[in-house]
Amino acid sequence: MTPNDRAERIIARCRELARISDVEGETTRLFLSPKTRDAHTLLSWWMREAGLEARTDDIGNLRAVRRSAHDDAPTLVLFSHIDTVPNAGAFDGPLGVILGLEAIAALAQTPLPFHIELIAFSEEEGVRFAFPFLSSRAAVGELTDEHLAHTDKDGITVADALRNFDLDPARIATTAPFASNTFAAIEVHIEQGPVLESENAFIAVVEAIVGQSRLSFTFEGQANHAGTTPMALRHDALVAAAHFIIEVDNYASNHRQLVATVGRIEALPGAMNVVPGTVTCTLDVRHPKDESRHAAVAHLVTKAQAAGEHRGVKVKATLLSEQRAVPMDHALTQKLHAAAERAGHDALQLFSGAGHDSMIVASHVPTTMLFVRSPGGISHNPAEDIRAEDVEAALGTLVNLLLHLHPHQ
Amino acid sequence: MTPNDRAERIIARCRELARISDVEGETTRLFLSPKTRDAHTLLSWWMREAGLEARTDDIGNLRAVRRSAHDDAPTLVLFSHIDTVPNAGAFDGPLGVILGLEAIAALAQTPLPFHIELIAFSEEEGVRFAFPFLSSRAAVGELTDEHLAHTDKDGITVADALRNFDLDPARIATTAPFASNTFAAIEVHIEQGPVLESENAFIAVVEAIVGQSRLSFTFEGQANHAGTTPMALRHDALVAAAHFIIEVDNYASNHRQLVATVGRIEALPGAMNVVPGTVTCTLDVRHPKDESRHAAVAHLVTKAQAAGEHRGVKVKATLLSEQRAVPMDHALTQKLHAAAERAGHDALQLFSGAGHDSMIVASHVPTTMLFVRSPGGISHNPAEDIRAEDVEAALGTLVNLLLHLHPHQ
Repeated sequence: MTPNDRAERIIARCRELARISDVEGETTRLFLSPKTRDAHTLLSWWMREAGLEARTDDIGNLRAVRRSAHDDAPTLVLFSHIDTVPNAGAFDGPLGVILGLEAIAALAQTPLPFHIELIAFSEEEGVRFAFPFLSSRAAVGELTDEHLAHTDKDGITVADALRNFDLDPARIATTAPFASNTFAAIEVHIEQGPVLESENAFIAVVEAIVGQSRLSFTFEGQANHAGTTPMALRHDALVAAAHFIIEVDNYASNHRQLVATVGRIEALPGAMNVVPGTVTCTLDVRHPKDESRHAAVAHLVTKAQAAGEHRGVKVKATLLSEQRAVPMDHALTQKLHAAAERAGHDALQLFSGAGHDSMIVASHVPTTMLFVRSPGGISHNPAEDIRAEDVEAALGTLVNLLLHLHPHQ
Repeated sequence: MTPNDRAERIIARCRELARISDVEGETTRLFLSPKTRDAHTLLSWWMREAGLEARTDDIGNLRAVRRSAHDDAPTLVLFSHIDTVPNAGAFDGPLGVILGLEAIAALAQTPLPFHIELIAFSEEEGVRFAFPFLSSRAAVGELTDEHLAHTDKDGITVADALRNFDLDPARIATTAPFASNTFAAIEVHIEQGPVLESENAFIAVVEAIVGQSRLSFTFEGQANHAGTTPMALRHDALVAAAHFIIEVDNYASNHRQLVATVGRIEALPGAMNVVPGTVTCTLDVRHPKDESRHAAVAHLVTKAQAAGEHRGVKVKATLLSEQRAVPMDHALTQKLHAAAERAGHDALQLFSGAGHDSMIVASHVPTTMLFVRSPGGISHNPAEDIRAEDVEAALGTLVNLLLHLHPHQ
């Protein structure tokens, strides 16, 4: 097969897998849904074609090992996830698994000084239990009884969902962890953003997954009659919030690598003829450096308060959640760059603005990510697409890495 | 009775009437509700105490005439409404009726060269049939079959609601119109705004009821991942809308007598981690001069489009409704001013930013309005209040006007 044939096969397989859906006519595969079994059946078949024998561990991950001739060789993990958001595209997740499998197929009989374990994680998106990364947490031994007690919208716990899928939660600690001699982990994923496309690049090596702060703001002014209240006597919560929204946009636009978003807003009482008395909105701030993120949050909270003060509007900011930035392994990232170069591709350096299983894995195993261009930056959407030349570049880079990687260098 | 006794009685009666409510524990009296009968009973009793005989016309207005000794004398109308918004205060509407009655009582036997008709309009707020001023329209002969076919939330038409109240819609044209020799009409009303309070004034004479334009705006950008989309590649509909909201506030703040309000806003998809792709919001613009209002609307539509253009956000503006400004009768307004002065009060000149029955009446009969200070500017709220000294000033002004008014001067 030519590299292009392999790229086309990867895309075709992603699209084939995307037809297996909990909801007919779209691609929706929630964690441990009945259709997940069909996805496993198809993936297992493709693994067998590549000479691998698949097993399912007790958190529902499908995994297979390409063994080195040296039984006591260390293990490299290639992974991504196969659960999806509702009405998803075909590539967010499955690409990393199917491309990993294709890389193994491309290696053919080439002897390597390490085993390769390919893992299709069962739960990354956090949709069914409103909590993400359950299966990668299990792989690194971080899944707790508390996690197993989370319930879905029907009140089913994670533990019961596993049992209903013929899995045994008591055996997770035995069957789910990475091999103890795992020395590196690599996740190939679509970018899910527009940067590669805007830079005319095919692939990128990820330096870090950004840290994230989420806040909610309440602007408390005074609801008044829109006809009888002169402008000078108003305490318009929406005008104060609008000044804040513009500050957020200005500040983030003027600080490299920072993104900040007001995604939700509600103005009450919400009548055409009433000056808004109360506005609530959210703020999402992300940056690869935690100090920069903290500085941004502090600055924007101050600006919100100033926007309110001018207008007699009280502002309350509440921190909802915070996630530290997770750097990828520097040495492994450099090796991935070198592999891209050797394969004839100029990989960008990027930060991942979205969360990935790699965030969980990286604190236990040297980890890195390879991003593949997302046409139009579109993801979490049936219109999610991928270009064969980009897949070819990613595959060439990964294969080149595998051929040159030495566990102890 | 002293003037202060009369003011206290007006306030006590308003509060007594406010206890008659469709919903226990609040003040809610919708057009033709069963409790409206009780309100009529109480008002009729007070009218009888003042020597007047009440009748109900076929749109549900309660009315009574203080007759001049000259049978063929012309008629002056004192009016306001007694329907309320849901969970209303005690003074919005009833004050004008009860104060009018007190003015008549204060006249005692003083002969006047005109009849005085006191009218408690049945429908001003537009709550039950989502359409306002039904009863003043009937009084000026503007009520149409189309109005009678409007339905409430239970599907009951205005015509049927009248019949259920033992009224005859076919007789509206006979029983509801003003006497044909009506030469002036005066509405006393709470300000429902904060201007009198901020100017330390008791009362104001209304020069005009402002014109009003209502628009809806759609900002159509692109929904994107809040983590993976750099600021420079966003088409954030909410940021564009925020710039527009600030333009609205700035422009109106810099133009005398203009008020402009964005009262409703919705951002979609409305997720914390998604850049808003679509924002819809409303704009309410009011000004006593129609040209100034039109200029404001045109300017703000242009500014909305400019705010979108910078960010690749398409903006669509839709005119929802438009109401022309209604000037009060100049001569009558001057006479009311003079009466206030004679009574020892310094009445402000104000524009009414809210709609009133006077808007309807003014195009048929020389009309003016007298505003009474609203503590805190609060209205449409159980906390709506009034001060006795302000009521005394309004009563003194009205009585003085009645004593000096000559129909043909």
